[in-house]
Amino acid sequence: MPSDQNSPNKKPTDSICLALSGGVGGAKLALGLNHLLAEQLHVMANTSDDFTHLGLNICPDLDTVMYTLATINNKELGWGLANESWQFMDALEQLNQPHWFRLGDRDLATHVTRTELLRQGNTLSQVTQQLSQALGIKSTLFPMTEQSVATFVRLENGSPLAFQEYFVKQQCEPKISGYYFQGIDAAGPSQGFLDSIQDSRLCSIILCPSNPFVSIEPILSVPGITAALTNHPAPVIAVSPIIAGQAVKGPTAKMMQELNMPLSALGVAEYYQKQHSGLLDGFIIDHKDHALKPQIEALGMSVLTANTMMNTLQDRVTLAEQCLSLAANLTHEHGLL
Amino acid sequence: MPSDQNSPNKKPTDSICLALSGGVGGAKLALGLNHLLAEQLHVMANTSDDFTHLGLNICPDLDTVMYTLATINNKELGWGLANESWQFMDALEQLNQPHWFRLGDRDLATHVTRTELLRQGNTLSQVTQQLSQALGIKSTLFPMTEQSVATFVRLENGSPLAFQEYFVKQQCEPKISGYYFQGIDAAGPSQGFLDSIQDSRLCSIILCPSNPFVSIEPILSVPGITAALTNHPAPVIAVSPIIAGQAVKGPTAKMMQELNMPLSALGVAEYYQKQHSGLLDGFIIDHKDHALKPQIEALGMSVLTANTMMNTLQDRVTLAEQCLSLAANLTHEHGLL
Repeated sequence: MPSDQNSPNKKPTDSICLALSGGVGGAKLALGLNHLLAEQLHVMANTSDDFTHLGLNICPDLDTVMYTLATINNKELGWGLANESWQFMDALEQLNQPHWFRLGDRDLATHVTRTELLRQGNTLSQVTQQLSQALGIKSTLFPMTEQSVATFVRLENGSPLAFQEYFVKQQCEPKISGYYFQGIDAAGPSQGFLDSIQDSRLCSIILCPSNPFVSIEPILSVPGITAALTNHPAPVIAVSPIIAGQAVKGPTAKMMQELNMPLSALGVAEYYQKQHSGLLDGFIIDHKDHALKPQIEALGMSVLTANTMMNTLQDRVTLAEQCLSLAANLTHEHGLL
Repeated sequence: MPSDQNSPNKKPTDSICLALSGGVGGAKLALGLNHLLAEQLHVMANTSDDFTHLGLNICPDLDTVMYTLATINNKELGWGLANESWQFMDALEQLNQPHWFRLGDRDLATHVTRTELLRQGNTLSQVTQQLSQALGIKSTLFPMTEQSVATFVRLENGSPLAFQEYFVKQQCEPKISGYYFQGIDAAGPSQGFLDSIQDSRLCSIILCPSNPFVSIEPILSVPGITAALTNHPAPVIAVSPIIAGQAVKGPTAKMMQELNMPLSALGVAEYYQKQHSGLLDGFIIDHKDHALKPQIEALGMSVLTANTMMNTLQDRVTLAEQCLSLAANLTHEHGLL
């Protein structure tokens, strides 16, 4: 949020929250926010780990958020749909086709439908809206961009590796020296984002506890998005995906080590501050990391400690409440909105 | 076969049979032939009922033959794969997508693989060969053409209806006044057919008991195919799909009535004779239709009566033996090959 801007009064009852999310960790907080806000929640998902596999347009983060908000996500696997079956994969393997990326029978309906709707000329925002509505999701879910962006990690020898090859096929085992988002310069913000950022009811922006490098950073790298978020009067709050020096899930901690960053919530805050100075107004860390609070506050952010582990639905709702409460306090303190 | 042509001696042990097939009925005889001939059987399937559905290239007749030859076909349904599940369809319906054409979870692997291999630039013959080999089929299966041909039926009012809409969605209920094959003039014989017809070991050609109008006729209508079959020295034999005035399965009998043809094996023989004079050397009818034998012989065909119902695998093998025996007799009688 800018410190010198005011906007017309809002009724808090119709205020809108925009959440930026990657996959599992982000989706948990999005679900908590969804319980509180329903139609008043907008979720923008990372699409830079999207890829085309077997001719199908696969959007892993969008789908994880979508299935989570529809409460049909597979909690055991951490991805895909609940009550899934694997007959397609079994038959695919018999046909000697690539089967390292698992596509469940029910999940396939999403990919086949998306691929066909895109082929018919719909944008990814339009397709996502149609799928979300069919699944009964009240929140508005959209991708960061309508264009194709592809994350590559750089290995130690400098050679690139497509994200799903790294993440799924090689189980994040190779050491990385960096990452980049192919196609990002030609991408623009999605229609969903443009609608959201121009909505006068937008009162809070939350960076969910997703991987800062390959989930949140691609979103913030879409030309125009960070500037629009930074210039918007609504407070921007990030939730640390690192708790007591560990990532809850995924390669965040491993990446931070390989990228020579301090492996802590402070490291995450410093990363955001360095990459996107002035973007974050608030930062939420776990109670376990309360000792880091002064150092993060010294970066110019208001810091709240909370239980950020989100094991239960109540944990998610409570953390969502704390995010919204911090946003409201920041708005009040600074006389914004 | 032409009556004035001879070709070099063949060892019967390496002689090849080419069967032309539509879906279920044709596939039954193809399976019988496969038991006798294995690698020495070539099967050319109708592809004019192929269509693109949900962005997937679906080839119903090719798949029915392929699954039947691999003995993984669904005998209860008469189409698709055995031990099939329907989770994809269930999820598709939840997404409000068209679900009138049923695609099983295992069957989907075939369609997704075919669509992707075609997209990569493979021909349908190449894709079919790859799928067949993966399924362990020893016979050579190929489509009638590499190009896209689409059957339309004409309704009584003259308006066209795409074949799968007629066959699956409307369950063959509308009365028809005709049919045509869109794209047939621009189509050419498949590479598989060209290889087969130029193979010096080709000694018999069999038109399986498939629908004469929308399964066999499209194959014979591909420019070049009927001429190549007629001019080839190998005898050409058709098996009647009509037994005692009834079709075993599908709309053949209903179509014959609506097209004002005699509803009998004689009607089928007359149709082939009228459409493709000089093509057929032999015609196999059911024992129940033995009274029609003289009239069909008067059309210039050698007629054999047999059990053409093919309820059991043994029935299929026996009928296949009789087809090959008639072909051998015709070759011997006419001093051909």
